[in-house]
Parts: sequence; structure tokens; C-alpha cells
Amino acid sequence: MFFHLCLVFKKSVEVLDTTLRDGSQGANISFTLNDKIKIALMLDELGVDYIEGGWPGSNPKDEEFFKEIKKYSLSKAKIAAFGSTKRKDSSVNEDTSLNSIIKADVDVAVIFGKSWSLHVTEVLKVTKQENLDIVYDSIKYLKSHGLKVIFDAEHFYQGFKEDPEYAIEVIKTAEAAGADVIALADTNGGTPPFEIFEITKKVREILNVKLGVHTHNDIGCGVANALMAVKAGVRHVQGTINGIGERTGNADLVQIIPTLMLKMGFNVLNGRESLKKLREVSRLIYEILGLPPNPYQPYVGDNAFAHKAGVHVDAVMKVPRAYEHIDPSLVGNDRKFVISELSGTANLVSYLQKIGIVVDKKDERLKRALNKIKELETKGYSFDVGPASAILITLRELNMYENYINVEYWKVINENSGLSIGIVKVNSQLEVAEGVGPVNAIDKALRMALQRVYPEISDVKLIDYRVILPSEIKNTESVVRVTIEFTDGKINWRTEGVSKSVVEASVMALIDGLDYYLQLKKTLKVLPDKYIT
Amino acid sequence: MFFHLCLVFKKSVEVLDTTLRDGSQGANISFTLNDKIKIALMLDELGVDYIEGGWPGSNPKDEEFFKEIKKYSLSKAKIAAFGSTKRKDSSVNEDTSLNSIIKADVDVAVIFGKSWSLHVTEVLKVTKQENLDIVYDSIKYLKSHGLKVIFDAEHFYQGFKEDPEYAIEVIKTAEAAGADVIALADTNGGTPPFEIFEITKKVREILNVKLGVHTHNDIGCGVANALMAVKAGVRHVQGTINGIGERTGNADLVQIIPTLMLKMGFNVLNGRESLKKLREVSRLIYEILGLPPNPYQPYVGDNAFAHKAGVHVDAVMKVPRAYEHIDPSLVGNDRKFVISELSGTANLVSYLQKIGIVVDKKDERLKRALNKIKELETKGYSFDVGPASAILITLRELNMYENYINVEYWKVINENSGLSIGIVKVNSQLEVAEGVGPVNAIDKALRMALQRVYPEISDVKLIDYRVILPSEIKNTESVVRVTIEFTDGKINWRTEGVSKSVVEASVMALIDGLDYYLQLKKTLKVLPDKYIT
Repeated sequence: MFFHLCLVFKKSVEVLDTTLRDGSQGANISFTLNDKIKIALMLDELGVDYIEGGWPGSNPKDEEFFKEIKKYSLSKAKIAAFGSTKRKDSSVNEDTSLNSIIKADVDVAVIFGKSWSLHVTEVLKVTKQENLDIVYDSIKYLKSHGLKVIFDAEHFYQGFKEDPEYAIEVIKTAEAAGADVIALADTNGGTPPFEIFEITKKVREILNVKLGVHTHNDIGCGVANALMAVKAGVRHVQGTINGIGERTGNADLVQIIPTLMLKMGFNVLNGRESLKKLREVSRLIYEILGLPPNPYQPYVGDNAFAHKAGVHVDAVMKVPRAYEHIDPSLVGNDRKFVISELSGTANLVSYLQKIGIVVDKKDERLKRALNKIKELETKGYSFDVGPASAILITLRELNMYENYINVEYWKVINENSGLSIGIVKVNSQLEVAEGVGPVNAIDKALRMALQRVYPEISDVKLIDYRVILPSEIKNTESVVRVTIEFTDGKINWRTEGVSKSVVEASVMALIDGLDYYLQLKKTLKVLPDKYIT
Repeated sequence: MFFHLCLVFKKSVEVLDTTLRDGSQGANISFTLNDKIKIALMLDELGVDYIEGGWPGSNPKDEEFFKEIKKYSLSKAKIAAFGSTKRKDSSVNEDTSLNSIIKADVDVAVIFGKSWSLHVTEVLKVTKQENLDIVYDSIKYLKSHGLKVIFDAEHFYQGFKEDPEYAIEVIKTAEAAGADVIALADTNGGTPPFEIFEITKKVREILNVKLGVHTHNDIGCGVANALMAVKAGVRHVQGTINGIGERTGNADLVQIIPTLMLKMGFNVLNGRESLKKLREVSRLIYEILGLPPNPYQPYVGDNAFAHKAGVHVDAVMKVPRAYEHIDPSLVGNDRKFVISELSGTANLVSYLQKIGIVVDKKDERLKRALNKIKELETKGYSFDVGPASAILITLRELNMYENYINVEYWKVINENSGLSIGIVKVNSQLEVAEGVGPVNAIDKALRMALQRVYPEISDVKLIDYRVILPSEIKNTESVVRVTIEFTDGKINWRTEGVSKSVVEASVMALIDGLDYYLQLKKTLKVLPDKYIT
């Protein structure tokens, strides 16, 4: 009861995730519609307050997203559509940007407007008064359509430094027009943290509306600037997962959220349980983008709680808080020791639990499995991105594995005609198939041989396929890691293969994917009710 | 004259670089003696005040460094040796740590001591008074040997929060013993920026000695925390190049220094000319470590001044300061335009400019090229990730393309033996090669055929290879996009190929990569002096 009261009285900071909008403006960043849906569902499960899904006026892919996401029921997050204030030469009723937000049929609109007088006169080329009218009319119009409106004051901090009266006038206008949140944006990311604090504090004294902040990392202060703004009174933070975004990126929510909760005492997301999902969410975004995770990333990186062997390791076991700023498990991460076989068994135990297998984490068979997994990791595997392959190794050690697929021989021939021929000898059966690429050809031949005996395999579909070079030295002789995600329509699982040949690595991951499904269906006769990704 | 006076009166912040000491404690970081010498000379040229060369008591490689570096005359930097305060059970005269600093025969000693009472009683296991004596005696001893002494107060901020009186007593003791600089360390990197500011300010009011700061990046605030400490009165900053270091790393000097100079008005290094070397220094450290440079790194990353949206590109050409927080050339970096489905001809124009081609953005040929590019993007291409392939299309439209590589036929055979055979008929020559995978096999066969005629191709190396499925529906029949990054040691370029076959897509990207290089070298006879990635 007392605990409950505490939670009620704890101040909250709401989170707007713009991975799908501002994040997608980063170099080398591109999401498919499926990616966007997958990410939105994951963000909702994490507990963010708003998901900025895209800019419906700017491209058809974003418009499709708003249609598609309606088919899902989200538990908490509100979907927000992004856009600009109205054009200078159109009325609100005719304005395509505002109307495409309304057409997106969402509950929340995020619109950005000019608050730096340089931009008003030099870029937008209107008078200061005209810009105030544009801001006022645009917000009023969206409000009149029943939308919650978040107003992003673009380049606010630069604007305030050069022409504070006008910058304030713009956001006062937005407040008067009924904006529900006014987010102060450090659009070019160049404002140092002490200025963010001072300016935000002044604004907090002037306005009554809920204030937000939108920061970028151009001087390496994206995260700190968001924290300083909260310290100055902001209660709404915008950012992206892993800090992806234009130039040096947006503020990284993965880094901001734990500090807000653990060091500043705010209530964020769905409370502490949400924090434990942070590492997983961070990983999935990297994987979708085909990027290797940043091992040095604060809170969630592989090295974030890495300790060297020896005295230090011993000391950290006795007095962890003497060496660690937080308990790594709070953010779903792990203490890592250079010499230790202990780290990881807990991980495996929790994976096995998901498929109905209960094993003690000190079980010798588990330790043997872990040693095999770690050895493979030195060769380019990464347990995080293809856990089903690691589970197969573990099932073997636990004597819970049955041999359903015995591949004796395979061969693929590709040529410039575009066609590939796959030949497979599996379970003593030789099959040949034509495919549009090597993976497709082998996949077809494999299925021809296996489906007769295991008809359940026809339910299995490949839904994602990624290749990266995990090693430091990269050339055409490098080891490649192929990750494949499968689904049977109910559950998803990910496998991986590592080889110097992209074809061989693909074949390995393909076989693991079918094998894993057969182990679940036929050996364990149990299906997890959750994603194992 | 007036300018000169201004410089004289400008306040300075001194920089201690600990790349060679704290940096080398990072995971997967290891420097050879030669590396260390090379880095030290580069840091001296950059203009840092102190180079912390290593911990002579802890390993022989560090001792050798101090001997070797004496053979060089440095223009400005002072070499500093690192160590701990004396052991609790030895006298200063017999203490190996202190004496190895003295033996290193340097001008400056950096020693760290306990300032968090938890560490004093739980880790060091001495009384608080004993620790004060240890600090006092150690500094006195080094001073009596004529050394300048920088005292690093380990875990100072944590110590201050738990036991402020004692933390202050420790640094007052260091001051009384004659320390020249007292650096407050956020050793576990967990202190938020507003606390760093408040605590540092209090210390500044109490002590008279020059204050320094040593921060880590565990909550993503390493850079901001150093800046906040300077704002609170610190005039000595410790960090590493690229932020390498234990766990999530040290504060990144490459990010701190430009903000101190360009945004806070301090005199750092050898003034503004030094800033222009920052990108080069950052690159060299990555190269020595065999790590890919971080394209999102503030100030110096490839994407730090990258613009993607078309309208935006047009505007930044007209009013750069409306979109860029600093002029990129100040830190030796470049503005970059990203080619994508959103971009207009302005992006293409600026790319072409870099390879010496001037075309008007309204040129019809350019519009035709852009239409082709946009059409390909609907088929899965994404030219922001492989712009060189887009340039090849544009060169064809501009009639500036020459046909050097004419592939008539190719074939790859892969099988479970692990070996791949690549067969290529290019420019009427048939070649066959064995490779460890299909891409390697084709790469080898292609080069065999082409290098006789175009020997320059032997300089071209592949440095990155990525595969993703860009299409909405993902299965083994989906289109895959392969992106390859190449280098000739001077410039880098990225190409892409799209096909339902991962092998074909790889072959396309490979051929484009070699073709682009030949166009630059042979047709245009001009090489950009900057990266085109």
C-alpha cells in the first residue's frame, strides 16, 4: 500500500520515441514497412508513451505504416504522426502537410515550427508575425480535429541565444493555440549542456504548458542535454533507440531512460521491469539495420560492465558497488569477466525456461554447452542474434536432442542467367531444385526431401535474412555471419551460421532453423508462447 | 596586435591525454611499443599538454616506452608516468610503485589515491587517517624528487556524495602536500552532469590548487561531464582519443576539445590550427587499433555533417549556419550530402563536384539520371548506402562513362566441402579461381582477368560487406541488397547490388566497385582528396 502510494507520487517523464521518423533520417538507415511494424510493437511492449511513426505527407511508405499499425492493439503507446506547420501560402484547410496528419487518423500530431528568427526571415522568408500566425493557425486546426498536439520548436536554443524575445513569443503562441506539449529542440545539436539547463529553466519560469526536449548528439552531449533539460523542469523526452538519426544521431533513449529512473528518481516507461528489456530492444534495432551492436554503448553494451580478471574481479564480487555505478541486471545486462565461465549460464537457463526446460544453472551439462557456445563466439558466432542455434547446442548436451535432419551433401550452382541450382542429399534422399538464388534453391531442395517425412515443415517461413562480417579485418576472405529469422505464424525464432562462404553460412542457418522447429514440435512437444528472437 | 592581446588574455584549459594508459585498459585494445611512440609524437604535434605514457610499475612495455620516448624531442607535450599512492605496508623509500615512477625519469607524475571512504575501509582496508597519511607522504616524496605531481582523486564524486567531509579532507591533504593539479575522477562514470557541476563548484570554492577532471562514459555523459566541470572552474581535462578505455570508455578528447575552443572560448592545444588535425588524429588511432572509424562520431565522423533530405540540402548550400552548428572545416571535416529517394539533384551535384565534375542542377541529363536512380530505389536499391553505384549511372547519362569491364559470363559453384569455384568471362577472357566463398572466388577470378590490363586494381581492397533484405515480404525468394565498401588506402567508396540471388547481388556490387575506381583513375583522371562513402 505504501509502495503503491510512493509510485503514485513519483514524478513521471514521458518518452516519445522517434526511431521510425527522425531515426530513419540517419545515413545508412532504412526501414521496411515490416520493420516499422515490428519496431512499433516492441516499443509498445517496452512502455514508451508515444511512437512517432513517420511523416505521412512526405512519402507513401509512412502513410502505409499508419494504416497497417491500426490492425494491432497497442497496450500503452500512442501513435503520433509528424509534420510541419502549414505552408506560408496555403490556408490550413488546404494544407497538404496538416491534412495528411489528419488523414493518418492518429490520436497525436507532432508538428515542428520555426522559433529561430534567422530561419523565419532567411529560410522560410516570411515576417516574424506571419510565422506566429502560421504556428497559431496550424495548432488550432489540428486541435479542432480532436488531436493531441506536440509542438516541436525547431532550433529553439539557437533561436533563444540570438533573439530570445522572439523565441519565447513563438512558444507562447503555441501555448495559446492549445499545444499539449511544447518540445524545445536543439536541432543542430550544438548547444552545450549548461546552456540547455539555463535556457530551459528560463522557459520553465515563463510557460505553464508541459515542456519537452528534443536533442541531437553533434557535440557528444545528446544524452546529457536531455538530462539537463529534465533537471530544469522538462517532463517529456524525445529520442531514438541506440541514438540513430541524422548526422551524429539523436539522443539515445537507451542511455537516457536508465539515468532518469535509477539516478534521478523519475517514473518512466512501465517502471523498473521495462528497464530489463532495454538491452534486447537495443539489439533488435541493430539487427534489423544489419549493424553490429556497439560494445561500448552505456548501460547495454557488451563491455558496459566488463571487468578485468584478477584482484578486480574478486573485489567486484565482494563489494560490487565499489566498482559498478549500477547493478547490470537492472538494465538486462550482465557483469562480464574476462576469465569466468559463470557468466552466461543464467542466460541459458532463462532461454530454456521459455521452451519448458528447467535446469539448474550449476548443471555440468549446461557448463559444457556454454563452453561450446563461447568457443563458437570466438569464431564469429553471436549468441544474442541467433539464440536458437545456441539452444540446439545446449539440447545436445542435455541429451534432449533428436537427429531429424542428416545432410550428407549439398551443392549450389549460380550463374549470370539469374537461376541457381541446389542439390541436397539429406536423410539418404537426393533432391535437386531450381531457385532464384542459392539460398532459395537449397531451401527448396531441402524442403522437398524433408516435407514428406515432416509435413509440419511446410508451416515454416523465412521472414528475415541478414549477413554481416563480424571480424575486424574485412575482405572477401572474411568470415560472414548469416542470421535468419523464421516463423510458423505463431512463434518466431532466429538461427545463425558462420563460414567464409556466404552460401555455406546460409545453409547452416537454414538447417538450424528447420531443425529447431522439429525439436520443439516433435522432441519437446511444447511451444513457447513468446518470441524467441 | 589586438588579436594577439586577445589570445594572451584568453583563459586556457590544459589537456592530459591518457590514450596510452587508461585507453589501453579498454577491451580488445593493445598497443605495441612502436604504436605508442607513433601516437605520442602525433599527440605532441596536436598540442596536448601532457601525455600519460603508461604505468611503469605494472608492466615492462610501459617501462620501455619511457626509455624510448626520450630519444625524441617533443615540441610541447610533457610525458607523464602513472602510478598509485604508496602501499599501506611500505615506506615511500621502498615503495615499488612510487620508485618506478621516479625511475621512469619523467617530469610529471600522475598518482591516484582513494577519496571515497567506502574504498578506504572496505577495499584498501586502512583507517581514514592512514589513507590521508598515504596520500600526503606519496605526494611529498615525488615532489622531493623534483617531479610535477598530478593527483587523481579516485571515485571522488561518489565519495563526495556519501562522505563529503572526508572526500574534501583527502584533496585538501593532497593540496597541502604540494600537488600541482588535483584531478577529480568520476571513476565509475555514473555521475550525472548536474551533480558533476554542483560538486566541482563546491570544491572550487574550497581549494586553491589547479583543478582537473577525469570522466568516464558509463551513462553516456563522459564528454558533457568534462565540459560541466570546466564550467565549474576546472582548467585541466583528462581523456583519450576517440574515447577508448575501460567498459564504455573514457571521455573523448576529440569531442571535448572543439567545444571548449569553439563554444566556450577557451584556449586549448596550440589554438585553432590544432583543431584541423583532429579528424586525422582520430583516424590514425582507429587505424592503429584495426577498428573501423565511427561514422557518427561528433565533429570528426563521416556523417557528422551529412545532410539527407533534398530541400534541406538546397537550404544548407544557401545558409549553412542555419543547419550546421559549426563550419566542418574548422575540425578538418567536410559537409556531405546523402543520395536517397528523398533527395533532389542538388545532392548529385555536390557528389559530382567532389570528383571534379561541375554540372548545373537543372541539367536534363542529371534529371534523367535521378529518375533512373529513383526507379532503382523502388526495386530495393538505396543509394545513400552505396552512392558510387549511383554515380556510375550518372556518369553514363553525362556521357562521361567509359566501358572498361565487360562481363560476358560468370558462374559460381559452392558445395559442402567449403570450397567455391568462380568462373568469369570478362573482356573476352575466361578465368577460373578457387575461393573460400562465392564472393571471394568471383573476386579472385575477376582480378585475374582485369589486373593485366588495369594494374591499378591491385590497390583496391574490400573493407565492408553487408547484406539485407530490403523488400516487404521476406523469404528465400526475396530480393537482397548487398553493399560493399572499398578502399585504395586513400579514399573509400561504397557500391551496391540488388538481386534475388545473394551471389548475383554481390557480383554486381563487386564489379561496380572496380568500375567506379577505373572511372575515377582513368576517365576522370582525378581523385577526390576526401572520403566519398
